[in-house]
Amino acid sequence: MPYISKTPKPPYYAVVFTSINAKVDHTEHVEMYGRLVGRASTYEGYLGIEAARNGDGTGVAAVYWRDHASIEAWAKDPDHQVAKRKGREIWYSHYMIRICKVERAYGRPDS
Amino acid sequence: MPYISKTPKPPYYAVVFTSINAKVDHTEHVEMYGRLVGRASTYEGYLGIEAARNGDGTGVAAVYWRDHASIEAWAKDPDHQVAKRKGREIWYSHYMIRICKVERAYGRPDS
Repeated sequence: MPYISKTPKPPYYAVVFTSINAKVDHTEHVEMYGRLVGRASTYEGYLGIEAARNGDGTGVAAVYWRDHASIEAWAKDPDHQVAKRKGREIWYSHYMIRICKVERAYGRPDS
Repeated sequence: MPYISKTPKPPYYAVVFTSINAKVDHTEHVEMYGRLVGRASTYEGYLGIEAARNGDGTGVAAVYWRDHASIEAWAKDPDHQVAKRKGREIWYSHYMIRICKVERAYGRPDS
């Protein structure tokens, strides 16, 4: 499984999710994260996720989508909504979500 | 120093840099990263950086800029150009750069 998402020629969309883990137990968070990535990947328009977390609990994830419609469909997913609520209320002390249009992309991906 | 960049009301730009560290010594890489962030922050239009790296060497960084012009000015910085060359040739086995327009942002930042 490559780390770098195999994305198409731009334009497409990136949801950049930056977060700081609260000082709580993250067992359920980690479990739900894995389950939700699996679920998101079944959605039409999902292009991939690249995520990293530092040892101090800060982290950045970029989730790629084909268009606004696919981002909105995923936003309505019931399990995703539960996770968002738990994120706001339990797992994250702070977070920021940025919806971005990818205009240009280049590099040396691992796929 | 907050982790989440204090960005203005969109639109602005995000450069999402995803990378996989090569299995080499990263002492110079880490040192240069710190120095370059300090240097970038002196550039007109620089809005902040949020970065994270996993224990396995994979990582994501989002660097925020006011506009295309400020991204292009930074791209021409001589120290940045040296770092990019070393990144391609030594530090990263794989990488991807995505230039994105931030259309919408919301959350609970730590500043």
